[in-house]
Amino acid sequence: MCIPRTKPITPTPPFPQGPAEASKKDSRPVNRCDHLGSHPFSDTQDGLFRAYLSPAHAATCKQVALWMHEAGMATRTDAAGNLIGRYEGQTPGAPALLIGSHLDSVRNAGRYDGTLGVMLGIEVVAHLAAQGERLPFAIEVIGFGDEEGSRFPASMLTSRAVAGTLDALPLGTVDASGTTLHDVLHQNGLDPARYLEAAYKPEQVVGYLEAHIEQGPVLEAAGLGVGVVTAIAAQYRFKVSIQGVAGHAGTMPMSLRKDALAAAAQAMVAIERIGANGPPDLVATVGQLHVGPGASNVVPGQTTFSLDIRAGTAQVRDQATTQICEALQNIADERGVGLSIELQNDLPATPCNPALTACLAASVTRITGQAAHHLVSGAGHDAMVMAALTPVCMLFLRCHQGISHNPAEAVRHDDAHTAFLVMLDFIRAFATTTAHKPTEFSA
Amino acid sequence: MCIPRTKPITPTPPFPQGPAEASKKDSRPVNRCDHLGSHPFSDTQDGLFRAYLSPAHAATCKQVALWMHEAGMATRTDAAGNLIGRYEGQTPGAPALLIGSHLDSVRNAGRYDGTLGVMLGIEVVAHLAAQGERLPFAIEVIGFGDEEGSRFPASMLTSRAVAGTLDALPLGTVDASGTTLHDVLHQNGLDPARYLEAAYKPEQVVGYLEAHIEQGPVLEAAGLGVGVVTAIAAQYRFKVSIQGVAGHAGTMPMSLRKDALAAAAQAMVAIERIGANGPPDLVATVGQLHVGPGASNVVPGQTTFSLDIRAGTAQVRDQATTQICEALQNIADERGVGLSIELQNDLPATPCNPALTACLAASVTRITGQAAHHLVSGAGHDAMVMAALTPVCMLFLRCHQGISHNPAEAVRHDDAHTAFLVMLDFIRAFATTTAHKPTEFSA
Repeated sequence: MCIPRTKPITPTPPFPQGPAEASKKDSRPVNRCDHLGSHPFSDTQDGLFRAYLSPAHAATCKQVALWMHEAGMATRTDAAGNLIGRYEGQTPGAPALLIGSHLDSVRNAGRYDGTLGVMLGIEVVAHLAAQGERLPFAIEVIGFGDEEGSRFPASMLTSRAVAGTLDALPLGTVDASGTTLHDVLHQNGLDPARYLEAAYKPEQVVGYLEAHIEQGPVLEAAGLGVGVVTAIAAQYRFKVSIQGVAGHAGTMPMSLRKDALAAAAQAMVAIERIGANGPPDLVATVGQLHVGPGASNVVPGQTTFSLDIRAGTAQVRDQATTQICEALQNIADERGVGLSIELQNDLPATPCNPALTACLAASVTRITGQAAHHLVSGAGHDAMVMAALTPVCMLFLRCHQGISHNPAEAVRHDDAHTAFLVMLDFIRAFATTTAHKPTEFSA
Repeated sequence: MCIPRTKPITPTPPFPQGPAEASKKDSRPVNRCDHLGSHPFSDTQDGLFRAYLSPAHAATCKQVALWMHEAGMATRTDAAGNLIGRYEGQTPGAPALLIGSHLDSVRNAGRYDGTLGVMLGIEVVAHLAAQGERLPFAIEVIGFGDEEGSRFPASMLTSRAVAGTLDALPLGTVDASGTTLHDVLHQNGLDPARYLEAAYKPEQVVGYLEAHIEQGPVLEAAGLGVGVVTAIAAQYRFKVSIQGVAGHAGTMPMSLRKDALAAAAQAMVAIERIGANGPPDLVATVGQLHVGPGASNVVPGQTTFSLDIRAGTAQVRDQATTQICEALQNIADERGVGLSIELQNDLPATPCNPALTACLAASVTRITGQAAHHLVSGAGHDAMVMAALTPVCMLFLRCHQGISHNPAEAVRHDDAHTAFLVMLDFIRAFATTTAHKPTEFSA
């Protein structure tokens, strides 16, 4: 009898319940996110889940509107259910610099994903208002209602409404309880027929700034509190299917098998190798895999897996995709199994506006005394949608161990304070240029 | 935009609905299996499913008992619900050579798995009886009631009862409808308290012969109609768990990942390589795999998979197991992921009796004119259980493309006829030796 050499599973490192280091500054935006992290601002009693147009969302908007008001803003709810606070500029009715992120969350969420960006916007305005400082543009802080798509199977509905890129509303789509979007809008006093009126006209805005936790480990690994986003990654999502021949695990000799899972294993090794050999912004992931028939005593006849490929530019993504597709086809040919690779999602890269991004990077350098670290966002953000309306830029905050969409999500108070200072500096610098005149950027 | 090079999935070759070649002989045993392949001999209207002690099982036993009777046998149902036909030898009440296999089936079964071995036993007796030929031993043809374990979560209940290796009956175990084995036995007129009385005394039997379809592709690949089984494989079944760290598929750089599925992929490549590099009777299979959390945009944090390793001897199995465990531990160490390998099932090899097997091989040579092909059975059979009672041997029949547990299961009529001739020859040869005296074998 062979006793396999085995070790107990190494436990996953325990997630910290707070920032990794003692904070140098006590950040009000972080504290406010913590305040919003549980009932009544969560739809679940345990943990945080704030769904679009849910009771928790309403309670959150009510609380955030109060903070906006205290910060010196006039507040409104737009036709899509977004909460917007406006701080007038030197001239009433001037076009606005938008500072936004989202107030909704995934299930069992962290407290900072989205919400922190809104809180930082409020903090900046509160500071300007306390100084009586008016700018050549208004500032509008937007708390988007739906970025995560965690209630209805459609994401970024509300930024798409604001950006004017939502052609039609999927009114018949239902949430987990079977309630249609149409009915949910009505229950929240919103008129489905007027939803698209949330759209801004391009001449009403001068730009969009979003601060967001990185949701990845790059800044932490680099020992930096903030970073400047150059682009939101181009993404492909494929469904890969491998068709082999099922057989009895005991009676089918290795030499006669057409094992669909063994073929998939070889494919996944190739995918990982190609992803790792590319530039740092390239990632290739198999996150879902199903085996058929899926019994321990049956050689798999069928395997299906997801393939997610992202990079800062379509060129890098597409080159890796070509390599991966060729490697998979070669594996299938050698093994005599069937292969299909079906494109399910194709998101182009969204470059951040170069002038705004340079301006933001200069602010990072002034505030931190270090050259700004530039990085690609592998995750989607409202900024990606807003880029269709106006020039956008994004500031990332260090996120402990890159953990996000998890109650253990953690940011440092001093990083939030740095972000606040960078945003304030950016707004003032932006005001001293002619860059805030929309025509400068729209080309 | 990169259009991945892809081919449509190669369709699985259509399963034949009958033997691959025109038959040289019209085999009554095969025709009888076909007759038993549908309602009322199946519990389902479509396809074949014959569950232990179901209405279809009862109807089948009634029909098979008629054929046994016509073949010259006295029939009875034993305390475990097995159907037994007895053909007396030269001396009434002599010990019996048992010829058996099972009458139950899996869901959506083929028609020959098990049933064909019973039909061949009847055919042999019918031939002897028609000649008025009596042997120094009786022949008993047994149609076992439960080999597949497809009704209750326990397999080979009835051969274990006959072999006397069933210590206690799991009377509380329930079928899919929630009925206990206890109640099912009662409904079929069987007394649970007397179930173990189905056991034979060793002195009542002289040996056990089972003919069965191979359920694998080896004989077909070798161009042979029948083969002689040397052993039923030793088997390990493990549950392998890999613990990595989940992360965002867009924001977690390749270099910082601890991807549990990528580690599993590398492990599966090693498992396949070690399995393929071993002797032909070694097989290593990953048939089940689960990924956590299992979303296309999340780097897998957890993967669990089954590992089934079989070989004709424990030595070959154990050596491969050691190699696989070392390879998996090295992969886990290099990647910094957790690994656990948990033994779930350990079946020792069951060697067939060498003297009986040699006798059977000699019959194959006489009938086919070719040296007998010896092979290991990777699947379990009633013979494996019966070996605890009496010396056993097994004859395998070619099975089209190795397909079994599938309606497309197919055997050739001429192969069934060959098997019939081999079995008849074996019985006569066995009778001319002193080998049928139980003491010769029990050592």
